[in-house]
Amino acid sequence: MTEDFQAITRFIVEIEQLKNVDRKIKPVGVNRYENSAEHSWQIALLALTLLPYAEQPTDHLKVVTMLLLHDIVEIDTGDKFAYDANHDDYENELAAAKRIFAILPDSQGAKYLALWIEFEHANTPEAKFAKAIDRLMPVIQNIHNGCQSWLEHDIAIEQVLAKNIAIEGAHPSLWQWIKAQVIEKGTQAGVRLK
Amino acid sequence: MTEDFQAITRFIVEIEQLKNVDRKIKPVGVNRYENSAEHSWQIALLALTLLPYAEQPTDHLKVVTMLLLHDIVEIDTGDKFAYDANHDDYENELAAAKRIFAILPDSQGAKYLALWIEFEHANTPEAKFAKAIDRLMPVIQNIHNGCQSWLEHDIAIEQVLAKNIAIEGAHPSLWQWIKAQVIEKGTQAGVRLK
Repeated sequence: MTEDFQAITRFIVEIEQLKNVDRKIKPVGVNRYENSAEHSWQIALLALTLLPYAEQPTDHLKVVTMLLLHDIVEIDTGDKFAYDANHDDYENELAAAKRIFAILPDSQGAKYLALWIEFEHANTPEAKFAKAIDRLMPVIQNIHNGCQSWLEHDIAIEQVLAKNIAIEGAHPSLWQWIKAQVIEKGTQAGVRLK
Repeated sequence: MTEDFQAITRFIVEIEQLKNVDRKIKPVGVNRYENSAEHSWQIALLALTLLPYAEQPTDHLKVVTMLLLHDIVEIDTGDKFAYDANHDDYENELAAAKRIFAILPDSQGAKYLALWIEFEHANTPEAKFAKAIDRLMPVIQNIHNGCQSWLEHDIAIEQVLAKNIAIEGAHPSLWQWIKAQVIEKGTQAGVRLK
């Protein structure tokens, strides 16, 4: 068992580095860019809070575990802005996932790698829900922080709506509500339409 | 349902403030104090990774939810250093929990408040395990960052061992392993014994 504890300790020390990975968004009322560790905390909690409204049966623990794990690869690859052309970096991220989860005891590492891959492929109800929550969070933040990351990166309202359509798949009624706010707040803040 | 989404959005925006609450410890390899949001992420993941080694049946989702929620009160009360005389601030923290969780739809808010109180009282297997993990994380960090927070606050090895005895209750074999390292690394770093 001591070997397992050693491996788990190495893993938890390794992932300290996610606190050094900056994202493109500033939290509401916080005058700095957020990092991927605190983002992961917040979306795990957002998922837990929205899961009772899920429109199909969804394993809560699996969703939360996916969200806590999903950004760890950024320790090696950095955060990719959702609207960048090179956002899709699956091969590099997979290599990072394999490196980092291999620090853990074998069965644990294999389980986390499988969950990370399931999240990326977004085919199961849990992965779809988790992906939608990961997308939803910066939309909520932009709606409440003057559309900071959309304006800083010259993103159009139409791009926001197209990029976040995955939220509709996971939760149609939530998407309708959010979509109206994206248009309203985006227009007020001077985000271009197209 | 729209009213519920509005309430959940207000809650998730409110808890952005936890990213502004600094703790007393610097993560390994990160040259700043960590905040309570990123700490909450890390301990949720540490718990998930150690739960397969729990010595009694423990509800994983409950433990993780508790850990994701437990520090939110610090938005109002600030982080209390575990070794401070005024560390026990239950009444103020309870008032904060009531204020913040009341932002949510009633049933959700009541559930989170009950989980927060259960964590604080530390009587159930889940709360005991969660508390032990919350304590364990800064011990692991100190063991790997030159005992930074113990040295900065003039904490003795004996205080560390006394304060963290709760880890033994939740996980005796893990505690034996950690205890030996506290003594070894603490002595090397010049932490006083008594």
